[in-house]
Amino acid sequence: MAGVKTKLNFAISGFPEFTPEVRDVERRWLSLLADVFESYGYANIETPSVETVQTLASKGEDVDKEIYALTRLAAIGETTSAKLALHYDLTVPTARYVAKQHGNLTFPFKRFQMQRCWRGERPQEGRYREFTQCDIDVIDQDTVSLSYDAEMLEMAVVALTRLNVGPVKFQVSNRKIMDGLATHLGLPDGTLLARILDKVEKLSTEKLSERLTTELGLDAAGIDTCISFCKIKGGPDAIATGLDALGISNPDVDAGRDALCNLLARVEKSRPKGFIIDGDLAISRGFDYYTGVVYEARFIDFPDYPSICAGGRYENLVGQFMKRKLPGVGISIGLTRIFTKLLSESLLETGRRTPTEVLVAGDESLTAAEAEALAAEIRATGANVEILPDVPRLDKQLKYANDKGIPYVWIIRDGVHQLKDMTSGVQQAITVEAFAASRA
Amino acid sequence: MAGVKTKLNFAISGFPEFTPEVRDVERRWLSLLADVFESYGYANIETPSVETVQTLASKGEDVDKEIYALTRLAAIGETTSAKLALHYDLTVPTARYVAKQHGNLTFPFKRFQMQRCWRGERPQEGRYREFTQCDIDVIDQDTVSLSYDAEMLEMAVVALTRLNVGPVKFQVSNRKIMDGLATHLGLPDGTLLARILDKVEKLSTEKLSERLTTELGLDAAGIDTCISFCKIKGGPDAIATGLDALGISNPDVDAGRDALCNLLARVEKSRPKGFIIDGDLAISRGFDYYTGVVYEARFIDFPDYPSICAGGRYENLVGQFMKRKLPGVGISIGLTRIFTKLLSESLLETGRRTPTEVLVAGDESLTAAEAEALAAEIRATGANVEILPDVPRLDKQLKYANDKGIPYVWIIRDGVHQLKDMTSGVQQAITVEAFAASRA
Repeated sequence: MAGVKTKLNFAISGFPEFTPEVRDVERRWLSLLADVFESYGYANIETPSVETVQTLASKGEDVDKEIYALTRLAAIGETTSAKLALHYDLTVPTARYVAKQHGNLTFPFKRFQMQRCWRGERPQEGRYREFTQCDIDVIDQDTVSLSYDAEMLEMAVVALTRLNVGPVKFQVSNRKIMDGLATHLGLPDGTLLARILDKVEKLSTEKLSERLTTELGLDAAGIDTCISFCKIKGGPDAIATGLDALGISNPDVDAGRDALCNLLARVEKSRPKGFIIDGDLAISRGFDYYTGVVYEARFIDFPDYPSICAGGRYENLVGQFMKRKLPGVGISIGLTRIFTKLLSESLLETGRRTPTEVLVAGDESLTAAEAEALAAEIRATGANVEILPDVPRLDKQLKYANDKGIPYVWIIRDGVHQLKDMTSGVQQAITVEAFAASRA
Repeated sequence: MAGVKTKLNFAISGFPEFTPEVRDVERRWLSLLADVFESYGYANIETPSVETVQTLASKGEDVDKEIYALTRLAAIGETTSAKLALHYDLTVPTARYVAKQHGNLTFPFKRFQMQRCWRGERPQEGRYREFTQCDIDVIDQDTVSLSYDAEMLEMAVVALTRLNVGPVKFQVSNRKIMDGLATHLGLPDGTLLARILDKVEKLSTEKLSERLTTELGLDAAGIDTCISFCKIKGGPDAIATGLDALGISNPDVDAGRDALCNLLARVEKSRPKGFIIDGDLAISRGFDYYTGVVYEARFIDFPDYPSICAGGRYENLVGQFMKRKLPGVGISIGLTRIFTKLLSESLLETGRRTPTEVLVAGDESLTAAEAEALAAEIRATGANVEILPDVPRLDKQLKYANDKGIPYVWIIRDGVHQLKDMTSGVQQAITVEAFAASRA
């Protein structure tokens, strides 16, 4: 990709697709992420792409608008109401899955899930209508250890470091502090407050104040408190000092602050060079189901690009689908969002155009049956091998190998076998036995 | 799964989901299939789940009815016409992909694709609304070598053998013979004839005759010819003899017969024990786009179960999306259909419930920080390691390891390290160095 910005050009706006050499890199990423998640004992699952509308809806105002419902094409135009829809994240489907599969699972249930999600939003840089999310979550019965809040963050950091995506800034908060702020402001709960303050980076102070007044009935002092609250950022000391200065203290604020400060202190030791992991009370994430820690991460080099990693703790999500309380905590890595950004900034090295390692080629003296028999023999050594059928001229076969980036061409001319290294151009006598030995 | 039939029980009818230990087997299958396809030089791609309705529609009467269109939930009830829909196979999307990416690809373009597809059909045994297909196709410019007709079949046979799915019967025909039959019967082309004869196994002779009369205007002699035609099955000799006996010969019939008989003769040598690869002129597949060889495969032990593998040659599919002619041939392995059948017949060995190899455990003397530091050290040797936080009692930790099938528990008691083999129960002194050496 030679340092030139790659223009992403999709057949349908918002629905990414890649050439084989780019897909090869994406596959390596998926494999590497799976390795990291498995190294911490997380098992892979997949859930259907589809859930009932009832399962998906009412989890946050922005996402509700973006749900893609399914209708059989034959029924379009009929006044049917949609019952099924494509999932927009992997957290809600997993909560439903845990409720359904409860009797078949051992708790704490630690799973990773790497699947496509869909949101009918306006496509723009980093925002797609179809994208792959890589999620890790742990769900337990009755309570889920606070240690997992740290484990999630640690795994995300390890994963992003291994993917070599460049420096990343994590911002962490705790919804309990937001709930405590709501109590302090005389509001019944923190849901609507969190929804509004989640927009603090996008809205002007004027617009934010207007929403706080009209939707929550806050007065000027309350609005000031909210705005100051959102500016509290930094390490454990900065968070504690900031909250003290604001003069907010109640059981929720104190519990949230302690959890957040402990977490920040704990993960500091696993922070790689160049990464930032800060508290930031403005972070609340757009989903209503978070109840504890919330995470968000961005590229340090592209601060205006949307968040590349996010998650949090949810105490009551599974409980919506079954009677028992099964709290969880998880983090989601926005694979497509990260991958396409590095791709368009030419920060990725392209992969292989083909998995073929050896092209069996020859002049007119080589019959198709001979070529096939030899290819099968070489394949049996564990190599990926192909033949270009119906192409008698050797130069065309060599050009094909060159165009596809096939590293070796096994050339048979008048019964003489030679292996040509396409990188160095060196050509030398070869036998299947010698080839097999060279791979062992 | 101990020889007992597993009842598949999904949250939403027609949308499969599996427990982690079953998903583990499905993942191994996907990896194994990828290895087979790569060993023949096929590169992986993925296409979006979504195509335009225009791209997907009008490829076959049955499938058109089953297309799932996407509508934003907010727009349900409005009289909008759907523009986007979920793909029902991977052939049409790949043809569209090749047209779009034409300038970025090297031909012959050999790709494999393992993705979910969706069809809004009535769920029943082997028929799901969401399912994973594993497709191999080769698409070339102007012509695609007939050798690939054999390579597809060979790869499918190798793949199914490696998956150890039991004996399979492949039925192969060639659409050109069907086209020739249409000419012989005085019909303009073979499309509608193929659609009707595709139902020969499902419809009574009476019902079939009725459709041939009303939809194609065939007389009794024509109907008899069709019914005799559909009975022509077997090896190259049986096919040639059968067509001679029917007295049909014209350029299409002869070209199709030669291609089919050559193919059957060629693949005979790679046929594994227990597998059948037969010609069968009744096979035409439900898609209108096939123009040459057509394949279909079924379990020999479950002859009434739907086809588990299918495909064919299409000369004009890519041409619908660009001006140039790019013919192709491919075969699709119905992963979900095969997998769920073996699962429900208890013919699969369950996989791992967790990837964890070592649980770090201890009595009350072990601190969380010590456990984490040790887990990180063991993880650095390449092992998958976890800790069960906040569980002080060792018996609970051992029970957890046992329930999840974790093979080793690293037990620390009063600073003494022992590794317990959960299968044998043997427990012996261990160090990280000794553990690393045992894995090397």
